[in-house]
Order: sequence, then structure tokens, then C-alpha cells
Amino acid sequence: MYQNAFFTLALFLFLSLAVSAQHGWEEVAPGVWKIVVGTPDDFDLLSAAAVPPRLEGLRKLGAAPFPLDSAQIVGEVTENQTQLRLPLVREEQIFGFGLNFKTVHQRGRILRLHVDHYGNSDNGRTHAPVPFYVSSEGYGVFVNSARYIDVYAGTGSRQDSPDPPEARDRNTDNAWTARPYSDAVEMRIPVGGVEVYLFAGPTPLDAVRRYNLYTGGGPLPPRWGLGFTQRVHRLFSDEQVRQEVQEFEDRGFPLDFVGLEPGWLSKSYPNTFVWDSGRFPDPEGFMTDLKKKGIRINLWVNPFVSPESPIYNDILPYTGTHTVWAGVVPDFTIPAAQQVFWGIFEREHLAKGVSGYKIDEVDGYDEWLWPDVARFPSGISAEQIRQTYGLLVQKQSADLYRKKNERTYGLVRASNGGGTSFPYVIYNDYYNHRDFITALINSGYAGVLWTPEARASKSAEEWLRRMQTVVFSPMAMINAWASGTKPWSFPEVEAEVRQMAVLRMQMMPYWYTEFAKYHHEGTPPFRGMSLEEGFAVGSGPLTIADSEADLETNPYAEAVRKEVKDQYMAGEYLLVAPMFEGETTRQVVLPAGRWYDFYSGEFVGEGEVITVTPGLDKIPVFVKDGALIPLTDARLHAPGNGEKYNLEVRHYGEKPGEYLLYDDDGETFDYERGAYSWRRLSVTRQKNGSWKGEVSNPEKGKPNNLSTVSWRFMTARQAL
Amino acid sequence: MYQNAFFTLALFLFLSLAVSAQHGWEEVAPGVWKIVVGTPDDFDLLSAAAVPPRLEGLRKLGAAPFPLDSAQIVGEVTENQTQLRLPLVREEQIFGFGLNFKTVHQRGRILRLHVDHYGNSDNGRTHAPVPFYVSSEGYGVFVNSARYIDVYAGTGSRQDSPDPPEARDRNTDNAWTARPYSDAVEMRIPVGGVEVYLFAGPTPLDAVRRYNLYTGGGPLPPRWGLGFTQRVHRLFSDEQVRQEVQEFEDRGFPLDFVGLEPGWLSKSYPNTFVWDSGRFPDPEGFMTDLKKKGIRINLWVNPFVSPESPIYNDILPYTGTHTVWAGVVPDFTIPAAQQVFWGIFEREHLAKGVSGYKIDEVDGYDEWLWPDVARFPSGISAEQIRQTYGLLVQKQSADLYRKKNERTYGLVRASNGGGTSFPYVIYNDYYNHRDFITALINSGYAGVLWTPEARASKSAEEWLRRMQTVVFSPMAMINAWASGTKPWSFPEVEAEVRQMAVLRMQMMPYWYTEFAKYHHEGTPPFRGMSLEEGFAVGSGPLTIADSEADLETNPYAEAVRKEVKDQYMAGEYLLVAPMFEGETTRQVVLPAGRWYDFYSGEFVGEGEVITVTPGLDKIPVFVKDGALIPLTDARLHAPGNGEKYNLEVRHYGEKPGEYLLYDDDGETFDYERGAYSWRRLSVTRQKNGSWKGEVSNPEKGKPNNLSTVSWRFMTARQAL
Repeated sequence: MYQNAFFTLALFLFLSLAVSAQHGWEEVAPGVWKIVVGTPDDFDLLSAAAVPPRLEGLRKLGAAPFPLDSAQIVGEVTENQTQLRLPLVREEQIFGFGLNFKTVHQRGRILRLHVDHYGNSDNGRTHAPVPFYVSSEGYGVFVNSARYIDVYAGTGSRQDSPDPPEARDRNTDNAWTARPYSDAVEMRIPVGGVEVYLFAGPTPLDAVRRYNLYTGGGPLPPRWGLGFTQRVHRLFSDEQVRQEVQEFEDRGFPLDFVGLEPGWLSKSYPNTFVWDSGRFPDPEGFMTDLKKKGIRINLWVNPFVSPESPIYNDILPYTGTHTVWAGVVPDFTIPAAQQVFWGIFEREHLAKGVSGYKIDEVDGYDEWLWPDVARFPSGISAEQIRQTYGLLVQKQSADLYRKKNERTYGLVRASNGGGTSFPYVIYNDYYNHRDFITALINSGYAGVLWTPEARASKSAEEWLRRMQTVVFSPMAMINAWASGTKPWSFPEVEAEVRQMAVLRMQMMPYWYTEFAKYHHEGTPPFRGMSLEEGFAVGSGPLTIADSEADLETNPYAEAVRKEVKDQYMAGEYLLVAPMFEGETTRQVVLPAGRWYDFYSGEFVGEGEVITVTPGLDKIPVFVKDGALIPLTDARLHAPGNGEKYNLEVRHYGEKPGEYLLYDDDGETFDYERGAYSWRRLSVTRQKNGSWKGEVSNPEKGKPNNLSTVSWRFMTARQAL
Repeated sequence: MYQNAFFTLALFLFLSLAVSAQHGWEEVAPGVWKIVVGTPDDFDLLSAAAVPPRLEGLRKLGAAPFPLDSAQIVGEVTENQTQLRLPLVREEQIFGFGLNFKTVHQRGRILRLHVDHYGNSDNGRTHAPVPFYVSSEGYGVFVNSARYIDVYAGTGSRQDSPDPPEARDRNTDNAWTARPYSDAVEMRIPVGGVEVYLFAGPTPLDAVRRYNLYTGGGPLPPRWGLGFTQRVHRLFSDEQVRQEVQEFEDRGFPLDFVGLEPGWLSKSYPNTFVWDSGRFPDPEGFMTDLKKKGIRINLWVNPFVSPESPIYNDILPYTGTHTVWAGVVPDFTIPAAQQVFWGIFEREHLAKGVSGYKIDEVDGYDEWLWPDVARFPSGISAEQIRQTYGLLVQKQSADLYRKKNERTYGLVRASNGGGTSFPYVIYNDYYNHRDFITALINSGYAGVLWTPEARASKSAEEWLRRMQTVVFSPMAMINAWASGTKPWSFPEVEAEVRQMAVLRMQMMPYWYTEFAKYHHEGTPPFRGMSLEEGFAVGSGPLTIADSEADLETNPYAEAVRKEVKDQYMAGEYLLVAPMFEGETTRQVVLPAGRWYDFYSGEFVGEGEVITVTPGLDKIPVFVKDGALIPLTDARLHAPGNGEKYNLEVRHYGEKPGEYLLYDDDGETFDYERGAYSWRRLSVTRQKNGSWKGEVSNPEKGKPNNLSTVSWRFMTARQAL
């Protein structure tokens, strides 16, 4: 045993030296460093995602200094385990570790990162337990491993700590605390090595941008993907879908795509992947007709193959030892499995006009999926397959569309680090409105997209409040396959719901441009307040001492230091503060700078905590000084390829403003070959004090879908 | 990757052959088999406990056939992991996997066995996550590993299953289920090998007995350990303790030992392990005085060493990398650490008269204890230290008393497989009365003891109901250090509480004998109904189909098939069915055979579900036909070494009966050197139909503490 100890210790010293020397870090892109500890797996998150970094975007962000003292970063390998340690300073706060639903501040938490359904507690089991965190000090850390990672996010105190906590007598000392100060994030990865990546700032948002760009940049959805979607009853026939589509049109509600649930399949759970000839006798004709009306079809699937599927015998050699609902589980790391499995998708779905998928049950529950003792023919462990299954199905299904030069935008239950660029939005069957907003905030630290879908509601008020947040999210989804709820199901708020839906469609140019920035610049379109320049000031863990002080001396400093998990940024300019059922008033923490009401343009405050009392018809939204928000006409379907649209540019506040408006064909991947444009919108003050708006000329040979451009100066009267 | 696959597969085949051949199993004791899969750790649960098997007891149980088809038991080692598979048949139910609080039937559950505080869900994190299970088919399985073990207790379905579930169409088939049938228990141990033990029946109770005997047999507490104990306020001085002791005596409440909380220490959390000279100026005199009154002292401790402790510098070289509350964490696997740490206990505590300990915080929480990335000088992993810390402190503290030839009986927050023989009862800070009873039931499958302590109550009714279950448990503890509750705190039930406390003392001969059976024969003194002969019949998982059938045709079969987690067996003869606050009536499931009321002796039923409506003053207790229950006089303190006591033997039912009464000096380990006796009590029917009771003569040179013996035939009138 003692020999064992010496061996461990020796190994420890050797590796820490090897690792903590800064020259051990390789700068793999501007502001991005990588180090290899021990001998990592061949198969990891980045190899599963298999997406090249967006070096162009990273070069634009430019060079930056190594953001930590590398001597304080320790990696050790002991008995087939890798242990990492990264430093924390007293006032530092950290964010991330994936799609958490209840917490934004992660310092002091213990997590086991494990792909699973969300089980109502932020313990690391979630749909996207991304091993990436970003610090209020302006750097990010990513651990590229497909293992279950134990994270001690500032909990353990060490004897060798340069800044250890003090021992106190609990009997009589009131300052005693059950959880003394810790100066490090520590992690345990159950394998003999890992790759660790470090992303520079200077700001936390820069670190997030670098992570997102290094993992491929955000997806650019087709324009129709940002319109409305409705999911219909699981056993609907083609005729019933046509009727529902007609009713949306008759009632003047926007609709861009319809989701079909398991009933489209001849057998499901496990699945044949072929159409049910009774409910859908002519899928191709059905989808052709709908597309003429500007409506696309999204199909529910899960990847478990029924013995009655035409591909069963061909996929069998490439499946795991364990079945799910008596269906076989494809090993998607094997090319032959990919060809067999996705082949039937191409023939039966894409060729007939399917525009996207909702990929279910690739996350958990443990009681349903293969156990960790399962084995797969590739030899990759069940644990690694579990951690990457969501990445693999996103990547491989997205590639089908890329081959057709046609963009898709769908839904998935699981993702992980490296999945930033996939055109999928995460959903689940948890349904807490407040926690959905916290998840939307956390999605911005994790390189994933999340939708606070509206599913059903107990009251008209709840329905309207949920629809209001759906409108300010990555996917405007009504997921009513079980409840049968329609936008107009609550007559007393039908008008208000329609108004919100119309606003979503009017804001299309803004949403589309903000997604383009996610793709080209790595800026999450939806993100937490801590990533806002004027907000980060004074963040860091709230200690009992300073909170009490601050409550009297500086309520704002205390507010930003506290976990703010019910308001978020939507795109460059908008601060969204949702209302929840039963609320008539709420507090909003405004970052530094002057802020304006989205609807009226009136000044509301700057760097302070305000209380708002909006009507039931309004979701509080606030706009930065000098903002330009590009809107278009109200319409029921997103503009199609080459379709022209009018622009109304709204200017807010007292500063001049400038906005680069993105445009392309909205449907293909030609933008990757340069077929896109950035048009400069600018508002300047005239000698007479009035505002003047200008739009730059279209670039030669670039897409130009703008017809008329009009200007609206929302804060004009205050300015004069 | 493919090579990797072939390698894995080859290894798999080789090992499964190696393991599944029955000659791979070594019979290490009668009815106990062991197999070694791969290369296990040197340090495991049994080496941590370091207790020899009670071969004498195992020989008495005798030989038995290998209980499973060894060809169906598969052990595999892949990439530094061990995977186990054991077969299940359709109707089989399994019990165990440690101290669960909400469930008794474990088939269909997924657990990660991890020593921790109980977090309100049966997920494997508990104070004693013992990797042992027993089957309704009459065998037991123990995995001797100190790693976190993932258990799939009949959840995964395999392609190669001889009896796989059938694929169904969820769209239209109502018989579709989210959790199809599984024919195996599978486990994953994160190391390259383990020892697996198999325990024969024929009955489930025999398998439990064999496990308990193989791990050393149950502890035999000193007689005083089975009396009452009160824990006093954490900052009480010696004078305040004397006053509390006096009040127990004045009010006529039994009391055998008093627990001192952290205030006895000069500093705590972390601890100096020396007395606070202010509150306890003369510990030795204090304890000597109390012992004269028949009262002993138990000390709260946790093992984390304060920089201000006299042993700090000596223990430092043998402590882990991480601190707990800024105290250092001894590596108890190192002999030098044991000498330093327990040395101060001998000098400061035992030498001055301390009779036992309450060892706190050796279980969890993760936020408090060392993280799994910590390292210890022995080279044993933090995970293994976590899994065995409770075993190590129990073993090493118990050995201090063995050295003095003085028995102890204390409290501990953590145990594990192998800890059966340690004289400690598990406690925690969870406080659900119903779940406490379920935990008491599960303790009987896990080789541990648990107390449903009374701590505080919202009402007189709750207080009385909790005191009633305390009386029928391994330790009659009032843990009122925080609440200050006394037995008489609710005047309206003071008389009823006293009556129950007195009953506990009267039953001392029965309790003491039943613990002797735990020690010599391995029979848990408190255990679940599924271990009762007449009950096991018809057990097994309740399927929707047969439950519906049974509800109409056979409510009893359905009742025993259902999870029964609110009634239990106390010793050989007694069935205890506790009442919970708010209840005036309840159902009780009686095993086959005739049963009688404990208080009146009246017949109540046989092999059926009865409904009882006891008064507030009674806890429903039922007695087997032919039972003999030995009682003694009411007294406030348990009989001391060599103290004589009177016996009243109660006979129940219509059958003759026989009972072996255990006796020894009640305080030392001389019984291990033969200084004990089994006196035969028997009741036979006379020609005239009346009962006759006889007691065998004392054996020469054996302890004999009986003075008068009287007989009471509880069911006599019905019998005549």
C-alpha cells in the first residue's frame, strides 16, 4: 500500500510539473489554448461532434493573453482517473456546466455531468451537461471528455491551499460556517487522460464567443425556422393536419411548420421509420400541398429500431447489447450503421419533403435507455455513447440536409459540448415557466439552444404569459400534441396572443441577424445578464457579510451580485423580463447605461433596480440607448428564398446608432460560399436636432431582399 | 476502434467462460461461495471491516446446494471496469442494497451505491449502501468492493436474453409498457475486478443469516445498551447533566446512558478531542458519580482534527490532501494514524470512564466531506475511503473497548458491507416516522442496525407514537439535544410514554436473547415480513395483470406480493405494526399460522389481512402461536454484571412452546470464551388440559442471573 502511495505521489509530481508549465499549453487558435493531460480517449465530445472551428471568427476576435496563472492549473492522473484543478479568487463567480434549470451561479456546487432528462435538481444530470464554464474574471474552461465528469465547483479546501479557510469553534463562534471558502474548481474524469481547453476574455462574453466559435459557431436556421410551429395530436391523419393548418390561416395566426408525433409511423417505440399507410397514404403529396401554403413538416422520431423495420436486419450487426423498448440501439459511431440508419430517413422522409426532426429519448431516463454495462460493437463504452448520442444524431441528421443544400431546424432532447453549430433546439417534458427562463439563460453559457415551449395552461393568464416568452426565444413552439391546445384556446386572450405572434414575425429581420451573429461571431442570441458589460461589475459570490452591508449601502451592487435568473438579453439590444402567472408587478435589474421601454420608447432607468407593472398584454422588454431594431411587415409565414420584404427600423434612446443587418437566401447553405450581405443601418443627429436614418447600398452580387425601408424614432420626443 | 472492439469481445468471452464455470466458485464456508473476477483492489469492504467469519454458526446452519445456475452468472472486465450479471426469474423479488428509507422491493430499481446522508430518495446514496441483496427465491449476493457500484436491479433487457420482452406498437397497443421485462441484475464496478459472494438458502432468511455470520455475526450489546438513552443540549455542563439525570429518576423514567453533544469538547467542528474545562472541569469524577447511579456517558465526536488538538502535529503526516471544516482528515487505513488518533480517545475518554460514542459526519454531505479528487497517504482512493470510513471508525473504536474487556454500544452515521458485527446503531437527521420504519425493515436485509429515534414532535400524539416504535427497536433513544424534549414533555401522554418505557425494560430478557441470536445465529432482531416463512409465499413482483386478478380473487396473495413497509418482525415471535400520527386504525398483514394479541393474548387471525383499532396507548403487536416471551421486573436501569433478576415467562396461543433464554455477565467479552448459557424454557400441555412451564437447570460453571421464574398463560382461557 505504501509503495502504491509513493507511486501515486511520484506520478502526481511528474504530471503536475508537465502540465502546469505554461509551455505545456498549445495555442490552437487566437485566444484558445489546449493541453493534453495523460492519455485521453480517442473518442471525445469534439470528435463526436466533428465540426471544424470557425477560425475566421476567432481571428476577428483577435489575440489575447493567457488568462490564468498556468502554474495554478494542475492535472493529475492516478489509477486510471484524471483529476483537474483550476484556481478561483475570492470574488469570482462562475457560470455554465450546461443546461441547468434552477441555478445560474455555479460556484459552490457539486455536479456529476451526465446526459439525462432533467430530474428537478441541478446536480449535473440534464439534457446538455456541457463541461464548459465561464468566469466573471473573463475566461472559459472546457474539458473535452465524453465521460461522466465529477465537478467540485469551488467546494473542497486543501491543506496546500495558498489561501485556506480558518478553523473555527462551532460551539461558540457564530462566524463558523458549514461550507468554508474554497480556492479551486476541481474535477474528476474516470479515465487516464483528457484534453482541456482555455478560452481568453477579456470579458466573460468574449470567452463564450471563443468557445462557441471554436466549436463551429452557432447554427443559422432557415428563416421559416424562426416562425411559429405547432405540434399536433400523436394520431392525427394527413386530413386532420390539413384542417389544423387551415384553421391557423382562417384565424390569422402565423404558422411555418407543423410537427407530427409518433402516429405518422406504422409502429413506434420501437420504430419502423416508415409512414403509417392508414393515417398518411400519400406523404409526398401531402407535404407538397402544405409547402405550397408555406407550411413545412417536422417528424418526431427516436432512434430505436423495431424488429419490423425494413432496416432491422441491416442495422443489427451495428447495435448495442441491450434493447430499448425491445428495439435495437444503433452504434452511431460506426459508418456502416450511419449509412443503414440514415439511408431510410433520406428515402422515406427527406426525398418526400420532410423539413426536419424532433429527436426524442436520446437523453434518458436510465430506466428506459441502455445501462452503463451495455457494450457497443465499436468498443466505445456505454457511458461515452450516452454522453454523445445527442451530438451524433444531431450531426448525422443535419448532414442529410447539408447534402441537399437545404437548411433544417429541429428539436432534440440531448446535446453536449461541441454541439454549438447544430440546428437543433433542446426541449423536454419538464414544465416550470420560471425554470424554463433560467434554462434559457443557461443555454447561453453552454453553446446550446433551448425553447420555453408553450404546451398547455391552467388559465388564460398563464397561456398568454407563456406565449409571451415563447416569442422571445429561439423557437416559437406550441407543443400541444397531448393537450390539443391552440393559440386561440383561451378566447379571453386570443387577441393578445395573436398580437404577440405577429410581433415575433415582425421582428424576423432582428432575430435572423442575431442568429447570423451567433454563427459568425459566436454571440449567443439569448444569454444571461452576467454577460452584459454594464452588469458584470460587482458580480461574484454573495457572502453573508457583504450582502448585509450592501443591502443598506448599495442595493444595486447587491442585486447584480445575487443570482438573477428571471431576466435575460435577447440579441444585442433587448432586455426581456418575463411575467409569470399571478404576477402583476416585478423588479428588473438594469445594467449601466440608459434603458428605454420597447413599446413606447420612454426612458425607464439606468444601472438601477426598477419595478414595473405592465398590463397582461405586455411582456416587459427594454432597449439599450442608441439601439436600432429592424422590423418587417406582419405576415403568417417567414419570407421564402428570394422573397422581398419591407423594413421598418426603430431607433431607441438619445445616442446615434448603427446596426449591421444580415441577409441571405434564408434557405440554403450558399451563405457558406459567400452569398450573404451585411447592410449598414445608421441613425445620426441632424444640425436641427432631428434624427436621420440611412441604409448602405446593396453590395454587388450579394443577396438583397429589402424593398422599402422606413424609420421610426421611438424616443424622439424626449430627445428634442 | 474496431481492434478495440475485438479486444473487448475476446476478453469478454474469456472471462465469462472463466467465471461462469461453477468450478470457478470456491465454497469458503458451508453454503457460502466466492469467485474472483479480474483483479480486485487489495482494499475492499471485508478488509476494511477486518472481522473473521463466525464459522461455528455457519457450520450449524449446515451445507446447502449452490443456489443458482452458475452458467447464468457472468463477470466481465472491460476497460478497467467490472460488469456483473446475475439471473432473475419472472416471479422473483429482491430485497436489500442497504439502508433504503422508502422502498423494500428493489427489483426494477437503479442505484449508485455511495455512502452519504439520506437525501430523501432511494437512489443508492445512504448511510449504509450495502452491496448485498437477498432474493425471494432463497439466496443472497454480496459484492465485496469499496467502490461506488452502479446497480441495475432488473431493468436492462438484452438481445441475448433467453427470455426477452416483446416489441409492441405504442401508437395503438394498450399493453405497451415503458419498462419492459428484464431477466437480470447487472452491476458496474469502476475497477478491474471484484470478489463476489453467493449465500445459499433454502429460505431468504437463511441467506441473510449466512451473510451476517460470514461478516462476523451481529453485535451483542451490553445489557445497558438496550436500556433508554437521552441526548442532552450541546452546551450542557456536568451540573446540568446531573440535574437531567436526577429528573429522570424523580419522575420514574428508565435511563441507562446519556449522550453529550459537541459542547463537551474544548473546540469542535473541527475537534480537539479534549474536554472543555469550563463545562466539564472533572470528567472522571462526573462519570464515576453517574455510574454509581447506573448511568453511563456517550460522547459525540466526528473524526476531523483541529489544528488546536494535541494530536494535530502527530496525525498530520497521515491525513488527506483536503480538509473538512479546516480540520485534517485522518487516513484510518494507516496503523500509525490509528495509534495517534485513538490514543487520545483511550487517554482522555475511556480511561476516565466514557462508555461509548456517537460518531457523526462519516457519511456525507459531499459539500462537507473531502471530494473524490482528494488523495490519502496510503494511496487508497478518496472513493474507497468514503465508502469505508464508517466501517473503519466503528472497527477501531470498538477495538478500544475490546482491549478493556468492556462492551460498548453506540451510534454512527455510516456503515457498509462487512460491518454486521460492530456495536453501533445508524442514525441520521432525516425525520419521517413512516420512512424510519421502512429503514428498520431494510436494516434487517443489510446487516446493520437502525434506530427510529424520537427527537421532537408537533403533538402529544406524535410523541407517543414515536416513543412506541422506539421501544420496539435496537436502541431506545431520545435524541433531544436540539429540541430539549423530555419523555414527560407532553403531560397528556406522560403516563402512556412511561408505560411504554417500562415495557422496554421489562422485555430486556427477550431483547437480550434476540441479540444473542443475531450474534450466534445471524438472525436479525428486527427484519421485514418477506423473511417470515409464512409470508414469503406468493411474493414476487406485482404485475398489473395479476394484481388486478388478485384484488378480486385473493386479497391476501396480493397483500404479500405488494410492498409491505409499515410492519416488521421484532425477534422470533413478535409482529409490530406501528401507528402513525393521525391514524386510529390500520391494516395488518398476518403471515400463515395463528396470531395473538400481545397485550391480551386473544386470537386475532391467521394468514389474512386484519384491521385493528388500538387506543392511543397501544402500539399493535402480535405474537406467534406457541410463543414464549420472557419478561423481567420493571426497573429504571438494566441489570449490571452478575445482578440477579426475576423472570416472568408469557406463553401465547394454543401450541406448546420452547424458548432458549440467553444469559451472560452482560458487560464483558467473557462470553467469547464460553462464559454464557442457554436456559431452556418450555411450556407443555398437561393431561388435564392446563399448561405447565418448566425451566432447565443452570449449567455448571455458566452464568446464572435468574432468581424467581413465574409463568403466565396469556391465551389460557381460549385454550380450555
